[in-house]
Amino acid sequence: MSQSHVIQLGLVQHACSSDVKANVDKAVKMIRDAAKRGARVIATQELFAGTYFCQIEDDARFALAEPIPGPTSQRLSDLAKELGIYITASLFERRTAGIYHNTSVMLSPSGELVGKYRKMHIPDDPRFYEKYYFTPGDLGWQTQNLTLDKSNPVTTGMLVCWDQWYPEAARLTAMRGAQVLFYPTAIGWYHGETPEDRKQQREAWHTIQRSHAIANGVYVAAINRVGVEEDLEFWGGSFVCDPGGVVIAEASRENEEALVVECDLSRIEAIRKGWPFFRDRRIDAYSPITQRFLD
Amino acid sequence: MSQSHVIQLGLVQHACSSDVKANVDKAVKMIRDAAKRGARVIATQELFAGTYFCQIEDDARFALAEPIPGPTSQRLSDLAKELGIYITASLFERRTAGIYHNTSVMLSPSGELVGKYRKMHIPDDPRFYEKYYFTPGDLGWQTQNLTLDKSNPVTTGMLVCWDQWYPEAARLTAMRGAQVLFYPTAIGWYHGETPEDRKQQREAWHTIQRSHAIANGVYVAAINRVGVEEDLEFWGGSFVCDPGGVVIAEASRENEEALVVECDLSRIEAIRKGWPFFRDRRIDAYSPITQRFLD
Repeated sequence: MSQSHVIQLGLVQHACSSDVKANVDKAVKMIRDAAKRGARVIATQELFAGTYFCQIEDDARFALAEPIPGPTSQRLSDLAKELGIYITASLFERRTAGIYHNTSVMLSPSGELVGKYRKMHIPDDPRFYEKYYFTPGDLGWQTQNLTLDKSNPVTTGMLVCWDQWYPEAARLTAMRGAQVLFYPTAIGWYHGETPEDRKQQREAWHTIQRSHAIANGVYVAAINRVGVEEDLEFWGGSFVCDPGGVVIAEASRENEEALVVECDLSRIEAIRKGWPFFRDRRIDAYSPITQRFLD
Repeated sequence: MSQSHVIQLGLVQHACSSDVKANVDKAVKMIRDAAKRGARVIATQELFAGTYFCQIEDDARFALAEPIPGPTSQRLSDLAKELGIYITASLFERRTAGIYHNTSVMLSPSGELVGKYRKMHIPDDPRFYEKYYFTPGDLGWQTQNLTLDKSNPVTTGMLVCWDQWYPEAARLTAMRGAQVLFYPTAIGWYHGETPEDRKQQREAWHTIQRSHAIANGVYVAAINRVGVEEDLEFWGGSFVCDPGGVVIAEASRENEEALVVECDLSRIEAIRKGWPFFRDRRIDAYSPITQRFLD
């Protein structure tokens, strides 16, 4: 019989202004609130320290990038240590002159950087000009072994936004042992889109992430922002789904909210025993997946 | 601007008894009905000629297998020719003494066998003892180029049931050019399951298949049976979703039904231009997907 093995996740969903200090202050306050309500692993939304700056290509915006460690990651490290929690934060990383990444970090209760992931899949569409700003990640798929207490280990995987559309990213991170996948996200509607398009996009976003939970038997946490910035209206709705794909908590679609969500990790093995997908993978037949297209 | 390019799919969902001739007669009648209503590519449910025999391991049940070509495939070939349509049918194939497969065939309007796929992922769980009956497929991922008329080509991919839980199968078949993925299925509830479990299972089944449509920008058609057989209650609900994951048609959850569904293949390119997932795949980083687990 599996022992119950519960962890409390925190998801911090908020609006942003052009005032970085005010954004970080707000996130810090919301993290404190989530920790007070019991959350031990708390995640920010994508690029939480600023507005979603990729809506235009403007080289002045590279000034928003910080080294890691740097001021924002240091402030969150100090906070993680003070509160005795893990924080996973999404940052605009300045690696060197001319190399910038969309990077997630995992900060430990002792204030150390214990995990780093650089967004692997980089989008580029009107209003999401990320290929201009972000060099594709070169750290591969990453997992982090967290120890909340000695009897309570948990392995997390950090992925970022556009990665969420790629079953390969979820699979490979789960194959490295992730039990919880985090997807900090900045996704919203353009004001020109029809209600029908909006519904389709929002549902597709929900569906694809739930499918990663199902295919891999893992928890999935998606953290999105709210608010209107330039041409985009971010749809919030941060959520956690369980390893069966059931949405167990969902934030407002409009308002700021810190979700605190209890996840029973013993559900992972229960679900995987019922539907043992990993057992039956045809690993002898998957190698063409490294091709662009099979024409 | 994309030209509209419409095809009509048919999905034949029915109950089965132990009388093979009666089952095939029924399917033939329903295929005729779907063709009369305009369907040009018509799909059966999984192993449509019989009850879902894998609920127990009994070597007498191998007698249900047929060679391909064989009586059932021949009857459907004749029907495809008579009606001038394509039929994709799911059959229990006897390849030789001791080698049996769960096989899909594509039969052309000239009555020829133009495609064959042998189920690659084989489940084995209580009441689904498929590893006993079915040798894992050795034909790999297959697509079929159909010509309904000269200006109206369509490329299909045939996958089967348990394959539906594997993003790799959908991806690799889409990478071979499939525009429509067929998943004949036999999925149902055990009478011991709670209402909550039932809901979770049914939604997971829906979600994972919609996710393949989204991730790959293809149409997905799932064809399930209805009725109670031995310990299982099959939940029907055959459906088609579009390349954005929107369910555009869904059959009854209890009754027999031949769905006829119009699919506009020009939606594929429209959706893929909007969300160009294939462009951004990190094919340099996917090779570990051929491992069992990364421990």
